Amino acid sequence: MAVYKSDQQDILFNLNDVLNISQHEQYGFDATSVKEIIIECDKFVENEVFPTRQKSDEFGVELTDSGVKVSPNLHKLNKAFYEMGWYALGMPENIDGSPAPEGLVAACRSLATGANVAWSMYPGLTKGAMNVMHLVGDDYIKNTYVPKIMSGTWGGTMCLTEAGAGSDVGNLKATAAPIEGKEGWYKIKGTKIFISSGDNDLYENNIHLVLARTPEGEAGTRGISLFVVPKLRVNEDGTCGVTNDVNCTQVEHKMGIHASATCVLNFGDANECEGYLIGKEFEGMQNMFIMMNEARLDCGMQGESQANLAYELTKQYVQERVQFNTEIVNHADVKKNLLKMRAMTRGLRSIILYTADLFDQAHKDEKYNDYIGILTPICKSFASEQGFNVAVEAVQAHGGYGYCSEYGVEQFVRDIKIATIYEGTNGIQAIDFVMRKILKDQGAVFQQISKEILTTMTRLTDDFSIERETLQKALGTAQSAMEFIATHAKSKKMGIVLQSCKDFLDLSAHIVVSWRLMESALVAKEKMTSANDEEKVYLETKLVDFKIYTTQHLAHSVACARAITSLTEDVSSYTL
Amino acid sequence: MAVYKSDQQDILFNLNDVLNISQHEQYGFDATSVKEIIIECDKFVENEVFPTRQKSDEFGVELTDSGVKVSPNLHKLNKAFYEMGWYALGMPENIDGSPAPEGLVAACRSLATGANVAWSMYPGLTKGAMNVMHLVGDDYIKNTYVPKIMSGTWGGTMCLTEAGAGSDVGNLKATAAPIEGKEGWYKIKGTKIFISSGDNDLYENNIHLVLARTPEGEAGTRGISLFVVPKLRVNEDGTCGVTNDVNCTQVEHKMGIHASATCVLNFGDANECEGYLIGKEFEGMQNMFIMMNEARLDCGMQGESQANLAYELTKQYVQERVQFNTEIVNHADVKKNLLKMRAMTRGLRSIILYTADLFDQAHKDEKYNDYIGILTPICKSFASEQGFNVAVEAVQAHGGYGYCSEYGVEQFVRDIKIATIYEGTNGIQAIDFVMRKILKDQGAVFQQISKEILTTMTRLTDDFSIERETLQKALGTAQSAMEFIATHAKSKKMGIVLQSCKDFLDLSAHIVVSWRLMESALVAKEKMTSANDEEKVYLETKLVDFKIYTTQHLAHSVACARAITSLTEDVSSYTL
Repeated sequence: MAVYKSDQQDILFNLNDVLNISQHEQYGFDATSVKEIIIECDKFVENEVFPTRQKSDEFGVELTDSGVKVSPNLHKLNKAFYEMGWYALGMPENIDGSPAPEGLVAACRSLATGANVAWSMYPGLTKGAMNVMHLVGDDYIKNTYVPKIMSGTWGGTMCLTEAGAGSDVGNLKATAAPIEGKEGWYKIKGTKIFISSGDNDLYENNIHLVLARTPEGEAGTRGISLFVVPKLRVNEDGTCGVTNDVNCTQVEHKMGIHASATCVLNFGDANECEGYLIGKEFEGMQNMFIMMNEARLDCGMQGESQANLAYELTKQYVQERVQFNTEIVNHADVKKNLLKMRAMTRGLRSIILYTADLFDQAHKDEKYNDYIGILTPICKSFASEQGFNVAVEAVQAHGGYGYCSEYGVEQFVRDIKIATIYEGTNGIQAIDFVMRKILKDQGAVFQQISKEILTTMTRLTDDFSIERETLQKALGTAQSAMEFIATHAKSKKMGIVLQSCKDFLDLSAHIVVSWRLMESALVAKEKMTSANDEEKVYLETKLVDFKIYTTQHLAHSVACARAITSLTEDVSSYTL
Repeated sequence: MAVYKSDQQDILFNLNDVLNISQHEQYGFDATSVKEIIIECDKFVENEVFPTRQKSDEFGVELTDSGVKVSPNLHKLNKAFYEMGWYALGMPENIDGSPAPEGLVAACRSLATGANVAWSMYPGLTKGAMNVMHLVGDDYIKNTYVPKIMSGTWGGTMCLTEAGAGSDVGNLKATAAPIEGKEGWYKIKGTKIFISSGDNDLYENNIHLVLARTPEGEAGTRGISLFVVPKLRVNEDGTCGVTNDVNCTQVEHKMGIHASATCVLNFGDANECEGYLIGKEFEGMQNMFIMMNEARLDCGMQGESQANLAYELTKQYVQERVQFNTEIVNHADVKKNLLKMRAMTRGLRSIILYTADLFDQAHKDEKYNDYIGILTPICKSFASEQGFNVAVEAVQAHGGYGYCSEYGVEQFVRDIKIATIYEGTNGIQAIDFVMRKILKDQGAVFQQISKEILTTMTRLTDDFSIERETLQKALGTAQSAMEFIATHAKSKKMGIVLQSCKDFLDLSAHIVVSWRLMESALVAKEKMTSANDEEKVYLETKLVDFKIYTTQHLAHSVACARAITSLTEDVSSYTL
């Protein structure tokens, strides 16, 4: 059976050589301390996280009279995660966090997520909720809730979805009525579904961020406000009090992420549920979006991180499994698939870490906030979808053993799939990408990134001629596809624009990933001149990743472009 | 919740209008009787098969001291399947079967398979084993086993795989030693793994076809013989006797097909297992291939049939689910995905039924046996893989609900995945396709099919110009890819040939599917002149299927070709 392994060398190459994250001097990290933290984190993941993965999947969650019980092995892990400071990594100092470069924080979170994604959602959502409290909460919130969450005593969730309001959040029915004589407090009433970590016994109290409509709230998203709703009421001294009338009535049986409790939560069945308004009234959606944007990048990371681990386990398997008198990695077909998996997983890593680093870059140059805007839907959609595909290939390479639960490989397929759905389906990401991130500014930011790509391409020497040619072709067809979309947008043929979004996101993503792998290949080539033999073996793989990605994956971006431009009729005219 | 529904109109259009299966006059079926049988079969599937699907998945199988127990609801279903004559459909008259056109038989099996694939494997493998007995068995086999199997009293399996011999069957360790004084009988010893239906209580006795090596059998596949090994010994009067020392020691926990027992079978632990040689000694592999070829087409059908049902359920869902004040089918992105799913599922149906019909055509013209040779790996690999992709899209269209087990959609993803692995992984299919079906005759049969495609294309009128252009481009790139492969084969660069096989199979499959959908579109267009309004609505969808397939799916074949020709180095030169 394969053992836990991460691609440490590639993570460090991205952080130290490509992104050079120690340039963000405010954190006081040099390349060596970056390496030390990655090694420490990797040890933690190997020893504490990975061993819980399959067992917690088998256990699932249990709904009891006293609430949801999670897999027993997660208690120890979760405790260690906080105690060893991994939760605090990257948090601001004023709430007892340990500030660190965003790229490093992302790399550590990716390691932990990949090794047990279902568990990672408990601290993950907690962090998202806490960030909202920290950023828009008043002193009461900051003093009462944030410290308890930082210490791992309390957990957090985000409660958007209702049965009739999935993607269409504005349609929600949950209500919040002001409580007379209790400034800031509202009676909350409603049922939320698909609430990840909605109830669990990992934390003493669960703090829900709940979207609901106040009496004056108009229909749609603009009438929605956000509330902090604890499971147990909080006494004046900050201890937990009586129940706050929040009840988990059901947990979903799902394809995967079995260890993550996906709950139906009833708020205020006995009219005793109280919530505290966070941020301004009617600004619920924009405040929730702080959490949503983070969650979208987390989704991408779920795809990227699990795909990377799936690749590592598969790499071991094909190097050990003998068929036809040789390890199966020596069969051309298997080898090529592994190379494609590696190029894709490393490609996904490169965009996830690049995007994380942009949060630091944006302190120096505001334009990078626009880059983040463009890259967020790409990371969410592309990394979840391609991560899923890599997991499917991992099963395939394992043959019949991959299909058996024992090997833990099929779990990746089941666990990643949700990432293409939640936090806005990938279809919705594509609409956000084209409508809000491209068409809104007439493609200005998109063109800016394209220009950067062209600049990087000028550094390609002639030994990269196939890669350059493929990339040029892809850029050309992307341009035509964009013009096609822009023309139809101008003439208000929105059906044609909307039916083109997903393909346009995919082809753009292929180009962005190729760009990041090109940058890696160029850095690797440069480093090679002074590298020792062992380093050279790794650096050589970066050239191969770039070649394999462009010839095997990027090639499909041309098909995406063709799929856009050759469908000149609005699909609404067709009968299903 | 969506209800069972099949695309009856499209099935009948394929059988009666495109393939005109009543031309096979020996069966005495006209278009009306074809329709009657499809309607009857569909009723059976709706009332008896589909209701067992989710429950049997939840139950899984249970390994007890007395053997494997399957889900209780399968007993009634299996009994009805035999009693109502569905098992006998398509079997020869001399063994009490009901001969019918192969296309019709395939269409009926597809309906049943799609609605509960895990169950379908019990009678499916039984049929495969029985066909071998019927075709190469001697009178003892034919008289003793075949009637019991036809009546549904006994079931059958195929036992190839061992722990160290998966794809590499020739490496197997199972042995067969002649029993003195008992002509034809051998002591069987060995352990087989991944045996589908390996043990179960659906049948009174399980008859295993086991590959094993006799004392004189040389190493590799050429030293292997095939044996009939019943679970219970068979008395002279044909009743079941004592145990034959065949024991199921383990059932696998798998990603999907939970209701299908995947067994580890120990033969002869107590040296009391007796098997009867079937066919000649050392001809085990070629006799097993009778069953294997059938099983490969079944795999394709598993992908095709489940994808078709997944599409039908999804079509209902998107027409009912309201988000943003309208049924989600009215969102361009959702609609386009549904159209892509339909084009693919109907495309897969068209190649599955076309290939089935070739078995009848081959009685009139032998060349169609070569077509079957080419189409078998295509059906197996492409239909299982694309069927899987359609199932993934079905989950996606269902959003969060698709990820929950309750809706039964994620089960398609889990259930289809195995079809890309067993009966020869898709990678192995691709090697068979290129090495044995294309390069062996210098692409003669492949060129013949290409010529047929070109002939069909001449019938395209100018309203199909986009489709024609896309198809022409695909054929052109296929030609270059084939030349690239042939050139490297000639210069013995087999690594490059082998690393190109899968992409070449995929692009060929895209072209073949486009061809069948083109034929359908042309037939539909012709029929339209005399069709009533209701019929026209359906016929119109056939034109759309062709357009969507070529612009959205076939477009990717160019990328496959490019992936082949742009990787000019042998991947074995790269370090993993």
